[in-house]
Amino acid sequence: MHSSLGVAVIGVGMVGRAHAAGFRTAPTLYGPGLPDVRLVAVADADPALAGDAARRFGYARAETTWQAVAEADDIDVVSVAVANPLHREIVEGLLAAGKHVLCEKPLAPSVADAEAMVAAAAAADSIAAVGFTFRRSPAIAAVREQLASGALGSLVHLDAHYWCDYAVDPTGPMSWRYRGGPGSGALADIGSHLVDLVELLGGPLASVRGATMGTTITERAVPLGAVVGHAKAELSDVRQAVENEDTVSFSATYASGSTATVTASRAAFGHANSLGFSLFATDGAASFDLDRPGEVLVADRSTPAATSGFRTVPVGPAHPYLTGGLPMDFPGVGYGQNDLFSFQARALLEQVAGLENLPPCPPLSAGLHNLRVLRAVVESAHAHGREVALQPVPPHALATTS
Amino acid sequence: MHSSLGVAVIGVGMVGRAHAAGFRTAPTLYGPGLPDVRLVAVADADPALAGDAARRFGYARAETTWQAVAEADDIDVVSVAVANPLHREIVEGLLAAGKHVLCEKPLAPSVADAEAMVAAAAAADSIAAVGFTFRRSPAIAAVREQLASGALGSLVHLDAHYWCDYAVDPTGPMSWRYRGGPGSGALADIGSHLVDLVELLGGPLASVRGATMGTTITERAVPLGAVVGHAKAELSDVRQAVENEDTVSFSATYASGSTATVTASRAAFGHANSLGFSLFATDGAASFDLDRPGEVLVADRSTPAATSGFRTVPVGPAHPYLTGGLPMDFPGVGYGQNDLFSFQARALLEQVAGLENLPPCPPLSAGLHNLRVLRAVVESAHAHGREVALQPVPPHALATTS
Amino acid sequence: MHSSLGVAVIGVGMVGRAHAAGFRTAPTLYGPGLPDVRLVAVADADPALAGDAARRFGYARAETTWQAVAEADDIDVVSVAVANPLHREIVEGLLAAGKHVLCEKPLAPSVADAEAMVAAAAAADSIAAVGFTFRRSPAIAAVREQLASGALGSLVHLDAHYWCDYAVDPTGPMSWRYRGGPGSGALADIGSHLVDLVELLGGPLASVRGATMGTTITERAVPLGAVVGHAKAELSDVRQAVENEDTVSFSATYASGSTATVTASRAAFGHANSLGFSLFATDGAASFDLDRPGEVLVADRSTPAATSGFRTVPVGPAHPYLTGGLPMDFPGVGYGQNDLFSFQARALLEQVAGLENLPPCPPLSAGLHNLRVLRAVVESAHAHGREVALQPVPPHALATTS
Amino acid sequence: MHSSLGVAVIGVGMVGRAHAAGFRTAPTLYGPGLPDVRLVAVADADPALAGDAARRFGYARAETTWQAVAEADDIDVVSVAVANPLHREIVEGLLAAGKHVLCEKPLAPSVADAEAMVAAAAAADSIAAVGFTFRRSPAIAAVREQLASGALGSLVHLDAHYWCDYAVDPTGPMSWRYRGGPGSGALADIGSHLVDLVELLGGPLASVRGATMGTTITERAVPLGAVVGHAKAELSDVRQAVENEDTVSFSATYASGSTATVTASRAAFGHANSLGFSLFATDGAASFDLDRPGEVLVADRSTPAATSGFRTVPVGPAHPYLTGGLPMDFPGVGYGQNDLFSFQARALLEQVAGLENLPPCPPLSAGLHNLRVLRAVVESAHAHGREVALQPVPPHALATTS
Repeated sequence: MHSSLGVAVIGVGMVGRAHAAGFRTAPTLYGPGLPDVRLVAVADADPALAGDAARRFGYARAETTWQAVAEADDIDVVSVAVANPLHREIVEGLLAAGKHVLCEKPLAPSVADAEAMVAAAAAADSIAAVGFTFRRSPAIAAVREQLASGALGSLVHLDAHYWCDYAVDPTGPMSWRYRGGPGSGALADIGSHLVDLVELLGGPLASVRGATMGTTITERAVPLGAVVGHAKAELSDVRQAVENEDTVSFSATYASGSTATVTASRAAFGHANSLGFSLFATDGAASFDLDRPGEVLVADRSTPAATSGFRTVPVGPAHPYLTGGLPMDFPGVGYGQNDLFSFQARALLEQVAGLENLPPCPPLSAGLHNLRVLRAVVESAHAHGREVALQPVPPHALATTS
Repeated sequence: MHSSLGVAVIGVGMVGRAHAAGFRTAPTLYGPGLPDVRLVAVADADPALAGDAARRFGYARAETTWQAVAEADDIDVVSVAVANPLHREIVEGLLAAGKHVLCEKPLAPSVADAEAMVAAAAAADSIAAVGFTFRRSPAIAAVREQLASGALGSLVHLDAHYWCDYAVDPTGPMSWRYRGGPGSGALADIGSHLVDLVELLGGPLASVRGATMGTTITERAVPLGAVVGHAKAELSDVRQAVENEDTVSFSATYASGSTATVTASRAAFGHANSLGFSLFATDGAASFDLDRPGEVLVADRSTPAATSGFRTVPVGPAHPYLTGGLPMDFPGVGYGQNDLFSFQARALLEQVAGLENLPPCPPLSAGLHNLRVLRAVVESAHAHGREVALQPVPPHALATTS
Repeated sequence: MHSSLGVAVIGVGMVGRAHAAGFRTAPTLYGPGLPDVRLVAVADADPALAGDAARRFGYARAETTWQAVAEADDIDVVSVAVANPLHREIVEGLLAAGKHVLCEKPLAPSVADAEAMVAAAAAADSIAAVGFTFRRSPAIAAVREQLASGALGSLVHLDAHYWCDYAVDPTGPMSWRYRGGPGSGALADIGSHLVDLVELLGGPLASVRGATMGTTITERAVPLGAVVGHAKAELSDVRQAVENEDTVSFSATYASGSTATVTASRAAFGHANSLGFSLFATDGAASFDLDRPGEVLVADRSTPAATSGFRTVPVGPAHPYLTGGLPMDFPGVGYGQNDLFSFQARALLEQVAGLENLPPCPPLSAGLHNLRVLRAVVESAHAHGREVALQPVPPHALATTS
Repeated sequence: MHSSLGVAVIGVGMVGRAHAAGFRTAPTLYGPGLPDVRLVAVADADPALAGDAARRFGYARAETTWQAVAEADDIDVVSVAVANPLHREIVEGLLAAGKHVLCEKPLAPSVADAEAMVAAAAAADSIAAVGFTFRRSPAIAAVREQLASGALGSLVHLDAHYWCDYAVDPTGPMSWRYRGGPGSGALADIGSHLVDLVELLGGPLASVRGATMGTTITERAVPLGAVVGHAKAELSDVRQAVENEDTVSFSATYASGSTATVTASRAAFGHANSLGFSLFATDGAASFDLDRPGEVLVADRSTPAATSGFRTVPVGPAHPYLTGGLPMDFPGVGYGQNDLFSFQARALLEQVAGLENLPPCPPLSAGLHNLRVLRAVVESAHAHGREVALQPVPPHALATTS
């Protein structure tokens, strides 16, 4: 048990900022219990970005290398939110230095890298977790509970999508998002979250099949300066080919025999951030879309026949993420995606402190498995849709969040 | 040009009744123009059912054989709404007798049968059409128009489903719906409509892949008496195996290169009759669900950025199906699935009379092509999801309804 | 018990056409039981309109006076769908001639006229009913049943609206709708339906208060020719003042002590035909909008706390209007406003034939009471919102439809 | 210009906690610009509550009197979130001590008290604001902008409601919420927010009429201990009468001549926190409900006729509350009611620091005017719904937030 916890964030792009804010808010959730939290450092290769983030989010200092974080004695817990080719080196270095680590998804560019990271985590004494933030959605967690409790019976089919429109504008700038081979586009960026959701709800997948991948906008202009997040940019005359997929779809079979259909697109006109699903089971059904993060639709056998129908359930204080989790916490009070990072940060700090309130963060092995599914999707696409089997996963490898 | 048109309906189960009502209502739509319509006969192997239907829907006589219809001199137009193994013989017989024929989908149990029917139609002088009734949905037609006009740009991806719950109750009786091999279940019954919708919106498919098929309720009790439609029944002690799929899913690639994901299920808890889709294109997007038949969601580039979003478009009198198509025809007046049969009957009668108001009914070749897609889905499922190519279709084979 | 029933419709504008179609469809609902129905005559002062309607809806002859209908021996049942200043004379004449009469709402331009009509009905042997068509909405009837059964507890408050946009266009032509004093505008045209709905759901009102009335478009151009329904028209240069209200609102107190707020507008931008309400009671709540005629929202104490919420209930075959009421009648099959006229026509024919299936049509006294409420609203508006008490109504005067 | 700002919160019930969290988060919004913010003190008569809140939200010290806050040299800005009978004394004391003050609504139990507070504010050099938090809703602000810009034309009618269910449970404990005369119940608690919303959207009201007030649950059991927020409690055997209204409704006329209907209830079954409205104007319409805080519905003349309809506009980065206002700030990222307190705290700190980014907080005179409207509603209810005129308000008295 620590007497206080020092935290740091590496990478202060859009997602890194959300981590930085999450650690700041985490101690304000759920009342007393947590050791003191010290906001020690943010690190970014760009010193101006690092300095601004440190000031804005109240971190004591700004660094420009991850090594400075690894070497610091006053830091216990670190979020890694940089481009994923850098994940392995940084996570291995932080673990070697005895830090607790939360690494953004997808874990690494290759399964081999991810396997090495899992091995490093196994050899370390500290916590090594992957940031599947949507597991912290009170709404998604509520659906998972309904399924896990058996209230809905056995899953029959799940139809899931993650539709964004950040790549729908042909005049949007070329960026790292559009580089790398097939599978490194929508599949890695948003499909990674989606695959985790698919398995969170229905359990481990046994195989995928029927994958398709398409690119709508095949080249883009290189911007004149740095771009953070999905911001607009001034463009140069240089155009480069988009190297990866805008849209991906596949079917999957769960180890349980149930089925799923999955689509992810970053070129889905009109859908700013639509992560959603409809599932039906033997005794019920449920739907969710991030467009309306505060509600889930649920149908089951509990209602009188004459007035049965899907219930629009406002996610509320019956759930640990909201009971005591926000200053105002009655039903209908609402929450946003930034709050998920606060819940995630709180869960990690509780794990480090040996507390038990929120479900723990999923281990790196969940990130490795996720990567194997993504790779199988790419293989299936290359093999004209043929089924690609996945190696079985022991339950603990995916962990659980409720 | 006929001076009057005599009509008949063969088969008076649930769908046959809808045809019978459709012909009765058809002349009341769109004001004058149509020749007089005589409601001559309904035919059903069950004389009691035939008699009741004739009385209820105002047909002059009830018959118990299709031959009686084929031989009648006072009948010009016939709807065929019997079990699909009977389609070929009846349609060929009616065409040989010079009748205009509207045959329910799916056209036949086998592609070979359907090919024979198409050949018979080619040799006949009369109209031979297939009943893809949902083409008559004002909402679906409105989306098709938006796509066809280019207002939404090029299709990127279509996600379509047909979810029903008529097979969700394990105590529901065994029936013809649950007999026949893989592909004769949800795929033939509701998937057939869905495939037609998928091609109506995005054009001909080039291939399917990744098919999965599953059966949730694997055996059912044989009922003690006849069952019409989806009615409840008293059950015997005899249980029989369900021979075909409750749920089917697949991916598809259009000839244009766009993609689609498709799921159909008759065991979709909570979904009474949910035929729907979400599509996104390069300049817009649209969604529809039969749960809300009077509205479509449309997004495009026409709205100011600060207030852009999906528009809930109430389908109204801007569309031929509603302008003059119902006694009260202002926006928001609503319509139901029974009205689609009236529109379909009207379109057929107009075709026979040589009028041009509603889009004509699709030819039998559209039903043949539909069957080929269904067969390809079954093949893909058997081949572990591998892609199955479809033979190219000349545009006129699918016809058009707007 | 008649051996056959002859029907006629007086007035073939938009609403008259719906009546004409309703009688044609009525015998096709609910299977055998009804005597034969003969479609005898439509009458309209405009012979061309009358002739077209007779042809379109299959009535044997067209007349140009109501007297011709009253005098005809082969007519038993008559719908009156003309401008309401003509109602009294026609209804009295028809009743005197022994016809069964269904009169459109509002019953008359004045309470005195309506009282005379009720007196005439009391003296007659035949049925005299008023056409509150929305009582035939399966959705509204389903909510009424929930309330009447006590499943929702006691009503606390009802918020009801009828928002249309037929008067939102400043270039729409001057017409009879815009003539007459305060109360003859939105209040009479659509508020009349709304008041009936308010009392159908919550019982008789004891008083109204706080009425406001406003006119958005204060003058309109006179059209160059006749206009049917809400159609566009060519305009002359002559402009006339709009004499009545576009928008009206008021509060009301039920005899039970519950309260209601009510707004009606014909100038409600974007709302084609939005008749709706939200009500909450001590043990439940419900909402409906005609925008989505096939569903009601219901919340009550039947669901588990963790997943409670408003249920989107698809109105279906659990209800008499749909069980056997349409050729295809499973849940989710949908229906439109034209179907309500078929249900209403069927109910009237059943009443005449002494059958009991659908709830009977409300008597003229319900139309009289309705008019008294409308008049009280006008009085309250004139008296700066002061409460205006209504005379108590014996329950049978409002009748019941379930 | 201060070199740093010390803040304090008086009262740490549910709303006080939201203020405390708001000040903590405020500096993390919108990047650099703000002086350093020091979280100095929370004060509450209950020392345990005060201590817990200080620890949880990171305030340097806990106090048990407001005077300790007033006297502290290191405090510049104070939120007052105690029961409203205490507001006047505390606000006057804080202003006298030179503090900037944000006082919760309703400003005071009486208009006289509020007038005294406004006078005190006029005499003070510091900022004195009232906490109409919903003005900070990005969605509500977006609708206001549409109206203010003229994009929707002139307002015709507004229908607004605030429906909560915190008083729907008859076994909920007696509390301060249920004490005080008519007008101190739902009207003061939630109606106060609603009236501010009504005027924010449509401008100052000229009169109210037709008010009704009702109490559903007329007595409640006294709890055995202290209760914070809407929590459950153990009950004693002592029952007390509920002294104020559960539900209130009224009509209103704007100074512009437009009309509004308004209902507020704390006993609205099924509605956890539903603050919403539908408005229509001469060229457009809009709707919102806090149930779905991230979206507004907008219709206007910008869309093609064939696909016009209400747009579901996801509130996003086009708006100052979101552009830079949250760590992740792309469209669809979502926000909750707690975020509104952060935006409000940020706006207040910017005002104190002389910055211009967010709209300033409304002055105490807005709270006084709000109270006058509430009092007029009570008067109208007592006078059988008769109209009660409001004294005209100079525009600056209501201030503006965009």
